[in-house]
Amino acid sequence: MATPLRVLGIDPGLTRCGVGVVDVAPNRTATLVHVGVIRSSPDAPASVRLAAIAAGLREVLDEHRPHVVAVERVFAQHNTRTVMGTAQVSGVALLLAAERGLPAETHTPTEVKAAITGYGAADKRQVQTMVARVLRLDALPRPADAADALALALCHAWRGSAPSAASPAGAATPAQKAWADAERLARSGR
Amino acid sequence: MATPLRVLGIDPGLTRCGVGVVDVAPNRTATLVHVGVIRSSPDAPASVRLAAIAAGLREVLDEHRPHVVAVERVFAQHNTRTVMGTAQVSGVALLLAAERGLPAETHTPTEVKAAITGYGAADKRQVQTMVARVLRLDALPRPADAADALALALCHAWRGSAPSAASPAGAATPAQKAWADAERLARSGR
Repeated sequence: MATPLRVLGIDPGLTRCGVGVVDVAPNRTATLVHVGVIRSSPDAPASVRLAAIAAGLREVLDEHRPHVVAVERVFAQHNTRTVMGTAQVSGVALLLAAERGLPAETHTPTEVKAAITGYGAADKRQVQTMVARVLRLDALPRPADAADALALALCHAWRGSAPSAASPAGAATPAQKAWADAERLARSGR
Repeated sequence: MATPLRVLGIDPGLTRCGVGVVDVAPNRTATLVHVGVIRSSPDAPASVRLAAIAAGLREVLDEHRPHVVAVERVFAQHNTRTVMGTAQVSGVALLLAAERGLPAETHTPTEVKAAITGYGAADKRQVQTMVARVLRLDALPRPADAADALALALCHAWRGSAPSAASPAGAATPAQKAWADAERLARSGR
């Protein structure tokens, strides 16, 4: 059996940054490796908070040695009050990946939901339920908000596998079709 | 004479990141130490671009050893197409400062303009002209877009000096008053 791809998913945030590591085999079977949340104190200056998040991310990178990093793409129009801190954390996450020579990509929440549930407008609970099912967990992943990081990692890994390899007959699964649609939407100008 | 404060100002950007280093004496006299622009290739992945900017910033930090770092504050509502990359670079800049134990703060463009020209809505040319005058340069600072980084560094240094020390009689200069107004505006909810 070929080596699984180890993906680190990062749901960036200055107060809570979700991290999830999964191994995904060439046949798309996925296994949970690590899930957690890195926190920083809202009372600290922004630079110190970013350093705390960076230290936590480096620990995960050192301990779990992912092959690739997937970071949620941040949009300016969402959650204006916190979006700048979120974007700053995403920049730090991408930097840490590059400094270790790891490929890093961003995915939109719509791409992630479509990849995981087959439906780009799925709610948080649906995503968590599917993540638990895919990873064969007995309960929803904890902490709940780190489930997004796992979903991101799964989305990235599945995207990497060519549909023709995953579906030899050339028939894309509903999730693959939904993902392709979401990707087209994202590329067409969001 | 007391040691001058050495300030690194950073005007964050993914394609062009302006950097300016100034020494500011307790009497507010300022001297140019370094000005430049760090570039990254638009063709490279975001993570690689951020690593290129980080490498350039580390060079400036190593060569010029500033005491403090000032970074322009990014707002979600401006220049939506590039604002996320700008915010990511600002996060990287703040991280690098924190990792060297340097205090780092952000200032709004309005604060900077008010500190330099006495007028928060000053145009680029006015800011460049005042930066050149303050630093006793024979011509406008080059490259032109790095003048913003110098203005940011000056703003930060002047902010640090208590108005009562700079104006023993307690009378704030027009620039100080304008800066205080800009700061109040920024704190009141922008």
